[in-house]
Amino acid sequence: MKNQASVLYAPAADSSSAPHQKKEFTISVFTENQIGLLSRIAIMFSRRKINVESLNVSPTEIEGISRFTIVIAEVEEVVSKLNRQIEKQVEVLKSYYNVNEDIVWQELAMYKVPTSVISEKAKVERLLREYGAQAVAIRSDYTVFETVGHREETDGLLNALAPYGLIEFVRSARVAIIKDSEGFHAKLKEFEQHEPSQEVIENEFLDKRDEVFTM
Amino acid sequence: MKNQASVLYAPAADSSSAPHQKKEFTISVFTENQIGLLSRIAIMFSRRKINVESLNVSPTEIEGISRFTIVIAEVEEVVSKLNRQIEKQVEVLKSYYNVNEDIVWQELAMYKVPTSVISEKAKVERLLREYGAQAVAIRSDYTVFETVGHREETDGLLNALAPYGLIEFVRSARVAIIKDSEGFHAKLKEFEQHEPSQEVIENEFLDKRDEVFTM
Repeated sequence: MKNQASVLYAPAADSSSAPHQKKEFTISVFTENQIGLLSRIAIMFSRRKINVESLNVSPTEIEGISRFTIVIAEVEEVVSKLNRQIEKQVEVLKSYYNVNEDIVWQELAMYKVPTSVISEKAKVERLLREYGAQAVAIRSDYTVFETVGHREETDGLLNALAPYGLIEFVRSARVAIIKDSEGFHAKLKEFEQHEPSQEVIENEFLDKRDEVFTM
Repeated sequence: MKNQASVLYAPAADSSSAPHQKKEFTISVFTENQIGLLSRIAIMFSRRKINVESLNVSPTEIEGISRFTIVIAEVEEVVSKLNRQIEKQVEVLKSYYNVNEDIVWQELAMYKVPTSVISEKAKVERLLREYGAQAVAIRSDYTVFETVGHREETDGLLNALAPYGLIEFVRSARVAIIKDSEGFHAKLKEFEQHEPSQEVIENEFLDKRDEVFTM
């Protein structure tokens, strides 16, 4: 557990570090129909005993195409191999891996606190302003706030709210925009037009992936 | 694919609907060390051919404990069985399932657009104000905006930005706060104090789960 914890909370290593040193990588995978794929991808990580720091799977803007965002701390060689293995999956259109310098990323966090505390302690109001928090739900017994930012920022409000009776906390996995991306959206759209959704997807798109997804 | 697409984008069914009708459920799973667990949970869904609409895995506020948020459209009977099966996993502390009425949920979305469009078209500025978007990164060639909300809201800005040269889009999986939760945070804290992190976790906590996690 100690090892896992240090991986979960370790700050990103310096990008100038040696290639054999572990650092934080964000893997972005564009996929078709995800039934079964999720477990195949998950097994690739567990088989190598790689801890997934955060995982986000959500539909993209194009019907039938999902995007996985996977954050791990590993040496580049391992990440590169994993990425190639992920790309071999039939449903995977394209997979990219990036260090933190290559992406713009955010996480969403929600905090549930007793409304009595919020309404009575002016100090809490200052904290909320300081962390740019928004109220999502206000009930007589509880209030839910949200913030968006990097881990340090959402953790900042978390630590500040903890003494005021934090009831529940949840944060999203990382979502990331790749700085160098050009026209992902247009290419996905084009892909969808050329190959409209079908009931069963076999490996018919395999040879078209580079054409569609080259940045 | 048609089936999957309709599941992905179907609005939540009315909560008054019959128990044998599919509706949207959010499963919240509190777990210890997740190596291997992710693939075991993923397999439970793929084996039953259940499409995972969105999946979020991220560390909680307590070191060594993660939270999964899984959204599926299913009949309650299937979800209840799944939930029991998830809870049988050694690393799982507690798993809850909720319909949309029982939770406060949000998603984060990021949109990358050409800066030239943002800086030249006043109409885009109006759209951004209208959708409460924030700028996350502003470069000479691109700008990244973010919004937080339900799917319809983040989709609204997406549709509005598409004609203005959307380059890339990503959204987080759902994160959810359970309305009825009381003192999750305190219980997690207490759990951590009673059972400090250890290198190897076997099933020693199994019999303590209800004590720790009863709402």
